[in-house]
Amino acid sequence: MITLSSDFGSPYPAAMKGVVLQATDAQLVDVAHDFPRQDVRAAAFWLREVLPYFPPAVHLVVVDPGVGTDRKAVVVRAGRHAIVAPDNGVAVPAARELGDGVEVFEIQVEDPASSTFHGRDVFAPAAADVHERGVEAFDGYPEYEPFEDFEDLSFPTPDLTGDVLRGEVLVVDGFGNAITNLPGRLVADRMGDSVRVDGDRVPSERTYAAVDPGRRLVTVGSHGNVELAANRGRGDDAFDVEPGSPVELAW
Amino acid sequence: MITLSSDFGSPYPAAMKGVVLQATDAQLVDVAHDFPRQDVRAAAFWLREVLPYFPPAVHLVVVDPGVGTDRKAVVVRAGRHAIVAPDNGVAVPAARELGDGVEVFEIQVEDPASSTFHGRDVFAPAAADVHERGVEAFDGYPEYEPFEDFEDLSFPTPDLTGDVLRGEVLVVDGFGNAITNLPGRLVADRMGDSVRVDGDRVPSERTYAAVDPGRRLVTVGSHGNVELAANRGRGDDAFDVEPGSPVELAW
Amino acid sequence: MITLSSDFGSPYPAAMKGVVLQATDAQLVDVAHDFPRQDVRAAAFWLREVLPYFPPAVHLVVVDPGVGTDRKAVVVRAGRHAIVAPDNGVAVPAARELGDGVEVFEIQVEDPASSTFHGRDVFAPAAADVHERGVEAFDGYPEYEPFEDFEDLSFPTPDLTGDVLRGEVLVVDGFGNAITNLPGRLVADRMGDSVRVDGDRVPSERTYAAVDPGRRLVTVGSHGNVELAANRGRGDDAFDVEPGSPVELAW
Repeated sequence: MITLSSDFGSPYPAAMKGVVLQATDAQLVDVAHDFPRQDVRAAAFWLREVLPYFPPAVHLVVVDPGVGTDRKAVVVRAGRHAIVAPDNGVAVPAARELGDGVEVFEIQVEDPASSTFHGRDVFAPAAADVHERGVEAFDGYPEYEPFEDFEDLSFPTPDLTGDVLRGEVLVVDGFGNAITNLPGRLVADRMGDSVRVDGDRVPSERTYAAVDPGRRLVTVGSHGNVELAANRGRGDDAFDVEPGSPVELAW
Repeated sequence: MITLSSDFGSPYPAAMKGVVLQATDAQLVDVAHDFPRQDVRAAAFWLREVLPYFPPAVHLVVVDPGVGTDRKAVVVRAGRHAIVAPDNGVAVPAARELGDGVEVFEIQVEDPASSTFHGRDVFAPAAADVHERGVEAFDGYPEYEPFEDFEDLSFPTPDLTGDVLRGEVLVVDGFGNAITNLPGRLVADRMGDSVRVDGDRVPSERTYAAVDPGRRLVTVGSHGNVELAANRGRGDDAFDVEPGSPVELAW
Repeated sequence: MITLSSDFGSPYPAAMKGVVLQATDAQLVDVAHDFPRQDVRAAAFWLREVLPYFPPAVHLVVVDPGVGTDRKAVVVRAGRHAIVAPDNGVAVPAARELGDGVEVFEIQVEDPASSTFHGRDVFAPAAADVHERGVEAFDGYPEYEPFEDFEDLSFPTPDLTGDVLRGEVLVVDGFGNAITNLPGRLVADRMGDSVRVDGDRVPSERTYAAVDPGRRLVTVGSHGNVELAANRGRGDDAFDVEPGSPVELAW
């Protein structure tokens, strides 16, 4: 199985699929091709949320603002999964969820056909190759060199030391839910009660439907983080936040 | 075969796919993940139009404004198809098209991992389970209880008794075609002629291209209903209607 | 393998998939369903860019502003590929890339179930049929008649004779890159230098990242054509162009 993720929109992912299918009969599964354009951190967040639900697979991931520069191409192996991606950290948080240890290999790239579409010319052929050789075996071939000096990526850590807890919005999903870096356990025992968000008192509820349509709430999303939401509405608009906005939580 | 439908946008459907693929080798086919957000009636309409074209399959459907409340999770069996969905009526009109009789089973849900993403935590595992046990056999297992008191859903019926026929717009498709609940037979014998829509005389044509680009027409869509359209334009804008708008048809 | 391309958005492509899967176990691969609405030339461009990356396949293509009129339905065979499409030229440029010679067959269409959705009622069944009978063999059946008088489609040719080279924007991709009909070789030996675009001096670079974020550049896209782009921005906005806009290139 090979999953595909990118910020390419359409129809560029189809060229990647064609290249992969030239080399393998693997089942292809689209994860998403509408990640926020060239936003490595947002893609890294979503991949960390989604890839752990898959059975062992090769994951082709291309969010690549540095395409054509000297940034490297890597395979990140974790558990029985391998992520083929640019070396910009996009694969690392997901890999840490997929396995206890993370191994990174640099892909020895021959002169690619284009400078602007390495998804098609570098990463798709590599993903098919890793799949055909096997996640356990591909590193026995000279195209893959162990690589220690890879780009890491971590999400900002919240400040939980004071009376006011300080975090930020990491991403906003398609529903408008603003997902913060504040761990859900902070509000888990206050469900049905209320908390202060940026000074305003807001209900803390297990479900969106616990408040009237259009009303704001704080909940714990499926990712386990505190989420600023609105029942049948957009939390980002209702709280006037966007990715990167600071969020203060108090009681 | 398992089809997937939701209003989740992206990338949440990928988590459902991962969960399903953990449990089955079934072929996955996306129906749509951009149904209007939390609009049960619109999703029910589109599923009724689309699912009958599929061979026997399990259909995973998640449009679920009541997620996390006490609304039940159901399997709706009709013909050789099974629809796994929340008990809000979204599956019922499609099921009535798929088979002569409709059987509904309540899914006995264990404590799910989240309160906000039952697509991943409840419906995806159930769809895989129904697929693996078989559409004819899953109800032999204790996780599925016959359920009579399910939520039904029907579309508003037009008033065809007077000189002026009164219906409404059910949904607007991506082209802007406004699909009404008025049966197509009403205009089928007036093709090439004209009808009155909300008092204005409008050509009634078999094809969009029968009128000049940008001009309005009434036609019979692929769903068999009267449709308000514009050649190479948006019918909803041209007729100033949206879902729920009343439509009066006369001669 | 059957690929699917259309301008249908969602959920209409699912009905095509259902019809295809009634008749074949072929692997289905979506190319794109968000081609610009009823824009035959744009779809023809993208198909020419993408389909050559696929292994031998049947390609179902429906961008069909003339649906329901007397435009014909065709199969275009080239190499070991077959494209099933309306006879409006949409398949021809891709077919010329897929094989040295192009053969066109008219599909003998029985009375279709609708006048507005031949993707479902004509092209999907034909694509499944061509797949099951085989790309080499389908034309032995009476439903397919050799057809010489098909609609051709070619892209406008640039004027490269003077000191100022004159082309136009063919399409704009989802990133906002404006893809012209000017061949990339014109600027290939000026990488790192600059060129004049509509009179303004603009850097010519191999990669987007070679200029500062938001700055304009000229590059050679993955399609081999001159592309007007902006690093981490939209080239169409930065150059104030859209499909059809004239582009003047000078040194």
